[in-house]
Amino acid sequence: METELNVEKVQALLLRGPYHQWLGLQVLSVGKGTIEIKAKWREEWIVNPDGRYTHGGILAALVDLTADWALFSSTGRGVPTIDMRVDYHRAAMPGDLTCRGSVVRAGKQFSVSEARIFDAEGNLLASGRGVYSTPAQKS
Amino acid sequence: METELNVEKVQALLLRGPYHQWLGLQVLSVGKGTIEIKAKWREEWIVNPDGRYTHGGILAALVDLTADWALFSSTGRGVPTIDMRVDYHRAAMPGDLTCRGSVVRAGKQFSVSEARIFDAEGNLLASGRGVYSTPAQKS
Amino acid sequence: METELNVEKVQALLLRGPYHQWLGLQVLSVGKGTIEIKAKWREEWIVNPDGRYTHGGILAALVDLTADWALFSSTGRGVPTIDMRVDYHRAAMPGDLTCRGSVVRAGKQFSVSEARIFDAEGNLLASGRGVYSTPAQKS
Amino acid sequence: METELNVEKVQALLLRGPYHQWLGLQVLSVGKGTIEIKAKWREEWIVNPDGRYTHGGILAALVDLTADWALFSSTGRGVPTIDMRVDYHRAAMPGDLTCRGSVVRAGKQFSVSEARIFDAEGNLLASGRGVYSTPAQKS
Repeated sequence: METELNVEKVQALLLRGPYHQWLGLQVLSVGKGTIEIKAKWREEWIVNPDGRYTHGGILAALVDLTADWALFSSTGRGVPTIDMRVDYHRAAMPGDLTCRGSVVRAGKQFSVSEARIFDAEGNLLASGRGVYSTPAQKS
Repeated sequence: METELNVEKVQALLLRGPYHQWLGLQVLSVGKGTIEIKAKWREEWIVNPDGRYTHGGILAALVDLTADWALFSSTGRGVPTIDMRVDYHRAAMPGDLTCRGSVVRAGKQFSVSEARIFDAEGNLLASGRGVYSTPAQKS
Repeated sequence: METELNVEKVQALLLRGPYHQWLGLQVLSVGKGTIEIKAKWREEWIVNPDGRYTHGGILAALVDLTADWALFSSTGRGVPTIDMRVDYHRAAMPGDLTCRGSVVRAGKQFSVSEARIFDAEGNLLASGRGVYSTPAQKS
Repeated sequence: METELNVEKVQALLLRGPYHQWLGLQVLSVGKGTIEIKAKWREEWIVNPDGRYTHGGILAALVDLTADWALFSSTGRGVPTIDMRVDYHRAAMPGDLTCRGSVVRAGKQFSVSEARIFDAEGNLLASGRGVYSTPAQKS
């Protein structure tokens, strides 16, 4: 499969998803087995109105989708998640997030990919990995 | 710690969170180490406009928060997630979801709890577990 | 696939593995999507000569293999693990262990299964789950 | 806490554990938040006498202990695993294994660390991560 690796193409595919739009995703860079995506903070992300930190489920979604789309150079599309793990490192305060994904191993049936989520100051907020269904596509 | 276990109390605490409001959560029942929560489907949950199935990050958020609040009878509040795992069993089509959580082990520092997410027909869509920070509270 | 569910058959298949022999496995019961296995403690399991508790890697192996063989009624054999998660609940002191596995969801390509490990007093020591590769077999 | 980072010290501490001895561990290098350990293959590791590949539980133990001891520069000792995840990438055929660990985040109460397991040809066989209990020690 020939895949033209460019930010615009991934951005267009990614943004077809309503939840991706809601997360305010912007693709910053796409490489071979890597991706960098920005997510735009919104008030609805908050889990606790006192502490005002972001819900773990938002960070989980970002880990999932970033790891998934880091596989783009071999998959050419978003692929189904089989399972995922997320570790939470520190509270995510209001502000846009930067998500960096990289492939651990691209396999013929399953692929493992990981992602790290950072705040504007470069603090690591969450990280994790998932297994994705990546069967060879028929041409 | 004495905790009055009732649906109204958990509902009020849970719904303080803007993301919980956005997810349309409604507490159906609360027991000792268990909880049942309904989530109201919305268009923004969709990951793929063709397939119209729900984003894995929504299901991850539901697993996380349901497992977390299943600990309510021992914690009396939402507690920080240390890490979480989610397994995806089948595509979640549009429709409200039912989330059932139960405590695996309530510990003095960490507690493990799990959750399962079902569609209206009772199909298991996703399941998972998390570790939560539950240090003894000072009175 | 017709599978005769009996303890002797699973015991014979399971014990073909040298590591399973080393773990002193004994199949106690086999059901539809469930299994119970005993593991015989040995001195080499210890991680710390002072505390004398069992290495987490032994418990991880027991979770993996118990969840795997809980799938026996649908697989008829041990199947490859795609990934696994283990939670540690309390230190495992010297003594034989009882391992109980049950299927979460048997799928056509992947299956999720879980296991819990208990000591002789019935204390829950560790628990976890794995995803297994279970493609339909050609007859 | 001042910690003298050297291979001999970690090797001596690590090898106190009977299971670590049984795994034939040899510490190759220790850095700030990193470690490299070799494990010596033995016949008992095999899960399947036909395929002769290594049991996933052996790889899980190696991921767990390698991630754990990658924390040595901040912990000065082995620390309790709270939970762990392992992904299996390809069958591990007979032969010694090289295990590389690195800290994801060293925290005041919990730390996350990861490890990758390679065969002699440098193929990635398994990888994973764990959360470890690392409370500040009283001096």
